[in-house]
Amino acid sequence: MSTTPTRQTDGSPVLSAPEAITNRRATRHFDPDQPLPDDTLRRILHLATLAPSGYNLQPWRFLVVRTAANREKLRQCAYGQPKIGQAPVVVIVLGYHNPHRTHLGPMVAEQVRRDAITPEIGKGMTAMATRAMENVPDPQVWATRSTMLAAATLMIAAESLGVSSAPMEGFETEKVKQAFGVPDDHSVCCLIALGFAASSQTFPGRFGLDDVCYQEHFGQPWTLGDV
Amino acid sequence: MSTTPTRQTDGSPVLSAPEAITNRRATRHFDPDQPLPDDTLRRILHLATLAPSGYNLQPWRFLVVRTAANREKLRQCAYGQPKIGQAPVVVIVLGYHNPHRTHLGPMVAEQVRRDAITPEIGKGMTAMATRAMENVPDPQVWATRSTMLAAATLMIAAESLGVSSAPMEGFETEKVKQAFGVPDDHSVCCLIALGFAASSQTFPGRFGLDDVCYQEHFGQPWTLGDV
Repeated sequence: MSTTPTRQTDGSPVLSAPEAITNRRATRHFDPDQPLPDDTLRRILHLATLAPSGYNLQPWRFLVVRTAANREKLRQCAYGQPKIGQAPVVVIVLGYHNPHRTHLGPMVAEQVRRDAITPEIGKGMTAMATRAMENVPDPQVWATRSTMLAAATLMIAAESLGVSSAPMEGFETEKVKQAFGVPDDHSVCCLIALGFAASSQTFPGRFGLDDVCYQEHFGQPWTLGDV
Repeated sequence: MSTTPTRQTDGSPVLSAPEAITNRRATRHFDPDQPLPDDTLRRILHLATLAPSGYNLQPWRFLVVRTAANREKLRQCAYGQPKIGQAPVVVIVLGYHNPHRTHLGPMVAEQVRRDAITPEIGKGMTAMATRAMENVPDPQVWATRSTMLAAATLMIAAESLGVSSAPMEGFETEKVKQAFGVPDDHSVCCLIALGFAASSQTFPGRFGLDDVCYQEHFGQPWTLGDV
């Protein structure tokens, strides 16, 4: 197992989670001349994989695009957004609909190996997850849930290591799938550009807790106040 | 604006993002006798709202269930899972399908007020977001994406402040909606129990980067290695 990083690449301390969450902006302009070191990219992706998922099936797949030619190809599938050309790395974040058909066995075996569960519990888990997954009402929604947990984890991890990000939902799904060979049982959940911001940005604001929280029942006003 | 917290409720330092991401477990058993202070709950929810979202429309809604009677009611909608009865707080995480119809104006106005955008850009943004949102192929998928970004942010924020969490997808959607008055244009994305773990848990493991990452094209092996 890796040790948890305590320093950013420039030597400054890794940010606390609240700092990383607060400082993160959807970056508009990346510095095209500042590459993302391999080691930092690996750390960010590894931390993203620590997100929770339904039955620990980890349906996220990260298609990492780094060459200028492929970023240009991706940009053509995403309404020509300049940041895809600028950022040194763009991750096509995919949600795999059927991990229980291919990855349930290895996942359970790993849990048994770690003494996280007994082989008996593993058998029960396999039967339950198989039944549940074959009856999921909407596999795309199911895969999207856990995959977006990993996407948020990726962006918070990046920010804490001094790396800026930009999540994008402006792309043509079928074009992306065709250009990068993504099969039908994978959804394109979002794109995430990673790199270093070329300019700072103003916080666009958020609704207060009384706008987005309810107490005990839908529509019942939030009375606990904001921070 | 709130200042970013630097201390947990017990006085220990807030965790770094990588620590919070690494330490978080899907908690199985909560201590029913340890309440979650209001102030901590507010901080966690506030940090969750700092997640990014499509057009900054913030489709997440947090239905916060705290009374024992309502947690019992929720437990009955979620296959009787004991942790819903044990945890002092359970959040029903909802994804709102149509925030552009009710919240686009106030969101743009807030950006203008903060000088994040000009009124002219605000007008263009309003037109573009309205058109795009009315043509979203699957509103549930759209709302689920951003809402799960907020859900992950919530759990990482909680962990960094010393609060354990458990995301749950085992519930009967229609029962939850009926019991808590959730309208049809909101999806129940997940439940998240919050509180203090009653026992420690073994890490169940994750697939390595070579299992979940591709380079440049779907299926092309990852050669950059793990951390």
